[in-house]
Amino acid sequence: MTKIQRHRKSAHLHGAVEHNGVLYISGHAAHDLSQDMAGQTREICDKLDALLADCGSDKSRLLQARIYITDMKLKDEMNKVWLSWLDGADLPARATIGVADLGDPRRLIEIATVAAVDA
Amino acid sequence: MTKIQRHRKSAHLHGAVEHNGVLYISGHAAHDLSQDMAGQTREICDKLDALLADCGSDKSRLLQARIYITDMKLKDEMNKVWLSWLDGADLPARATIGVADLGDPRRLIEIATVAAVDA
Amino acid sequence: MTKIQRHRKSAHLHGAVEHNGVLYISGHAAHDLSQDMAGQTREICDKLDALLADCGSDKSRLLQARIYITDMKLKDEMNKVWLSWLDGADLPARATIGVADLGDPRRLIEIATVAAVDA
Repeated sequence: MTKIQRHRKSAHLHGAVEHNGVLYISGHAAHDLSQDMAGQTREICDKLDALLADCGSDKSRLLQARIYITDMKLKDEMNKVWLSWLDGADLPARATIGVADLGDPRRLIEIATVAAVDA
Repeated sequence: MTKIQRHRKSAHLHGAVEHNGVLYISGHAAHDLSQDMAGQTREICDKLDALLADCGSDKSRLLQARIYITDMKLKDEMNKVWLSWLDGADLPARATIGVADLGDPRRLIEIATVAAVDA
Repeated sequence: MTKIQRHRKSAHLHGAVEHNGVLYISGHAAHDLSQDMAGQTREICDKLDALLADCGSDKSRLLQARIYITDMKLKDEMNKVWLSWLDGADLPARATIGVADLGDPRRLIEIATVAAVDA
């Protein structure tokens, strides 16, 4: 019997749920939606840094990222921030998907990840 | 060598595939598409209850949910059902994504999940 | 302490990241976008065969597939290739999602998977 550990409860979800050394992390979006793609991506990376630290992990242990963006023409702006945030040696497996709607027309990006905690 | 166990084979997929204490569950949609968002979500939750029971798990052990909906304006209706189904203490990590098409214009929602079986 | 092993580094991601016997595989699309849905799907399956072999796994150990397509009317063409590629006994859990954009109007499909390496 292994245990499930949940972190950062909010109204609709936990920010992260840990099981068997793996951290399933909720989709994160920027709070300040007046920002452009680079700014929103930067805010998400900062949030992930804080969340991962809370859960005993860090960005070098990201395993998988699903990056949902509403305008694929802005992909390069996102990539610039993503690649400056992560060490090239640690880049997670990734899929980048152009989606119809992230709930607010100003919300340009949401990132859902999986990370290791025991590695 | 661990084993892979597959559950509920259909034409294109297995309803769930188990490996190392983790259950990867296919996207589920409602069968009765005449229902509104609340009804479709309720039907999906009922299906997940049955599937999880078949696989030796239950809704308290959901780790991750990806909720795909075609109209983000209906998110609150979905949330009401989702939150009445799950105990707040057990809410999984989640991403809710507005997608272009779920294959039938009346299909409003599809939910893909990951659950623990050994926790 | 388990280890993370990364495979096939490219500019933005690793093709696959392994942790605890699980392989998180990046979204794959066809390189030759002049192909129709069947051809693009076939190219992705071939790429996955090669990637899985590189990582010590194979298609019989796929656990989860997220299939993103831009035109759900082409789902049957994709299914035909997918089902001829995989043995029915091994079909992974799956969600098939109609997305807005995969970055190039000719890119019809992208497939992100999770596979076992130790099973």
